[in-house]
Amino acid sequence: MPLKPNLSEIQSAYKLIAPHIHKTPVLTSSAIDEKVGANVFFKCENLQKVGAFKIRGASNAVFGLSDEEAQRGVVTHSSGNHAAAVALAARWRKIPAYIVMPETSPQIKQKAVAGYGGKITLCGSTPRDREEAGQKLIEKTGAHFIPAYNDEVVIAGQGTVALEILEQIPDLDILITPLGGGGLTGGVARVIKEFKPSIHMVGAEPEAVDDAYRSKLSGKIVTIEKPCSIADGLLMPLGEKTFPLIYELVDEIILAPERQIIEAMRLIYERMKIIIEPSSAVPLAALLDNRLDAKGRRVCIVLSGGNVDLSAFFEWLRSRIV
Amino acid sequence: MPLKPNLSEIQSAYKLIAPHIHKTPVLTSSAIDEKVGANVFFKCENLQKVGAFKIRGASNAVFGLSDEEAQRGVVTHSSGNHAAAVALAARWRKIPAYIVMPETSPQIKQKAVAGYGGKITLCGSTPRDREEAGQKLIEKTGAHFIPAYNDEVVIAGQGTVALEILEQIPDLDILITPLGGGGLTGGVARVIKEFKPSIHMVGAEPEAVDDAYRSKLSGKIVTIEKPCSIADGLLMPLGEKTFPLIYELVDEIILAPERQIIEAMRLIYERMKIIIEPSSAVPLAALLDNRLDAKGRRVCIVLSGGNVDLSAFFEWLRSRIV
Repeated sequence: MPLKPNLSEIQSAYKLIAPHIHKTPVLTSSAIDEKVGANVFFKCENLQKVGAFKIRGASNAVFGLSDEEAQRGVVTHSSGNHAAAVALAARWRKIPAYIVMPETSPQIKQKAVAGYGGKITLCGSTPRDREEAGQKLIEKTGAHFIPAYNDEVVIAGQGTVALEILEQIPDLDILITPLGGGGLTGGVARVIKEFKPSIHMVGAEPEAVDDAYRSKLSGKIVTIEKPCSIADGLLMPLGEKTFPLIYELVDEIILAPERQIIEAMRLIYERMKIIIEPSSAVPLAALLDNRLDAKGRRVCIVLSGGNVDLSAFFEWLRSRIV
Repeated sequence: MPLKPNLSEIQSAYKLIAPHIHKTPVLTSSAIDEKVGANVFFKCENLQKVGAFKIRGASNAVFGLSDEEAQRGVVTHSSGNHAAAVALAARWRKIPAYIVMPETSPQIKQKAVAGYGGKITLCGSTPRDREEAGQKLIEKTGAHFIPAYNDEVVIAGQGTVALEILEQIPDLDILITPLGGGGLTGGVARVIKEFKPSIHMVGAEPEAVDDAYRSKLSGKIVTIEKPCSIADGLLMPLGEKTFPLIYELVDEIILAPERQIIEAMRLIYERMKIIIEPSSAVPLAALLDNRLDAKGRRVCIVLSGGNVDLSAFFEWLRSRIV
C-alpha cells in the first residue's frame, strides 16, 4: 500500500496554509554547539502561531474543507496545542470550532482555547468520555471532526515544516523531531525521504514513554498503559495512519531520560533566551545523553512548541516585590 | 558644551563592533498590539551576545584600545551584564579581563563571568569596597578601567542599537528604552535626535526608582538612597556623562509600577515565547498602565536583556518528575 500523505499532498498543504502561518526562524547557539560537538540548527515552531507546529495540520484540515462542509464548523477533542490550533484556524475561516476538553484540564489551557474563539464543551477525563462528547457534538451540529494526528490531512500539514527546513538549512546531515503520536515525525520523514533521503531521519521520545521505539522494533503499534513523562505532549501512542510512516521512513528512534529533558530545556532557556515546552527539549536531551553519534555533523532539531505553565516562576517573582 | 558622544563616534563604534555582535531581530505580537492599541516593535537585545545590549558598549571600549593599552587587560566592577560583556569582549581580543564582584553577588552571575573567561576578584558589598578593589587591581596590573555606563566610549557603543532600529523599522513614531544609568537611553537618543528628531524619544523607569524622572525635572542629578525594584538592572543613578544627554535629548520619562512590570514580563513570555529580564519589561509596563499616549502609533521598545534567574521554574519542573 502506498504511504500517505504523498509529497504533492504536503506541497499542496503548504500552498494552502502559508498565507496564514509564520515561516519560523532557525536559531543557533555557539554554547550549545560546543556542548554537543555538532552544528545544531533549531527550527523554532515554538515561535509559530498558537506557539506550536500544530497550527500547520489544523489549518490544512480547516482550509481543505469545501464551503459546504466548513459552514457547519469543526470539532476536536484535545486538551493541548491541537485544540488551540483548531480554534484559531476556524476563526481564520470564520466558522465555529467546538472543542471537547476534560473538566480536569488546566484553566490556562481552557483560557487559551476560549481566547482563540473556541466553543468549549467540558467532559469526563477518560478517552471514552471525550469520544462520546465529541460524537454527540458532531450529531448535533454536523461539524467536521479533525483528529489530533491520526489523519492524512493533518499529517500533510505537519510535514510542511520540513519544506521550510530544507530551504533554510543547507547540507543537513541529521534531522530530529520530538515523537509522540507521530504526526510531526511522519509528515517530516515523508518529505525528507523524498527530497533528500541521505539525511538521517530521527525521532526522539522520552525513555519513560518509549512506545514508538518499541513499536518500530516489533513491527506493530505498542501502547503503554499509563504513560507519564514531563514531556506531556508526547504521551499518545502511534495511530494506524502514522505508524507506517514511522516504520518505513524513520531511520532511528532515540530516547531521553526525564532529568536530561529538564537539563536540555534549561540550556535552551538560558543560552537561547527562548521558551519551549518540555516535549521540544527531548531531541537535545537525547543528544546530551550521547544517544546518537552526531559529532561534527549538521543537525536540525524541531522545537515543536512553547506552551508551558510559567506560574511557578511568576509567583516567585511576585514574592520578590518589596 | 557639545554633547558627547557625537554621531560619528557612534557610527565608528558600529564599524568596530559589528563583526562581533548580533544584529538582533525585531519581533512583533498581534496579541500585544491589540492589548496596547498600537503597533509595537520589540528590538530583541535579549537575543544579543551575553544576553544584553551591554556587549555593544563593552566591545567598543575593548576594541577601541591601542595594542599597547590593551595588552595589560581591562578591569571593571559590576555584578551584572556589564561584567559578563567586558569578559567576553576581552576574550575576543585575547586580553585578560579583571572583574571585581561583591562576595554577595549570586553564584549564577559569578559563573557567567567565569564562563566568559573573566578573572574574578571578590570584594565587600559597598560601592566603596568595589572602587577600592578596582583601584588596587589597576595599580597592580596596569589594566584599563571600563565603566558600566558613565563613559563616552561605552555610551557610543550602546547607541549603535539605534542605527539598527532606524534601518529595521520604517516610519517609527515613538522609541522607548529602559532607563537606569542612562548609557543606553543617552546613546540611543543621540542617534535619534540627529537622524530623525520627529521620533518621540522616551525613557522608562520603575516608579519605585524614579531618580532619572526627578533629575530631568529638577535639572540636576538626583540620587535615591536605597533604590529597590524588581527591575534590578535600573537601580543606578545617572552620571555626569549621561545626564546631559537625557536632559537635552529625551522628550519624556515614563514610570511603571512594580506589579505592572511583572504583568508585562508575563505577557512577553507567554505571547512571544522569549525570555527577558524584568528591566526589559518596564517600557511595556508603562504602556499597559497608560502612562503614554501611543494609540495607533508605531512604537519601538528595546528589550535590553534576557538574563534572569529561572531556578524557581526549574525547581518546580523537577518536582514534577515522577
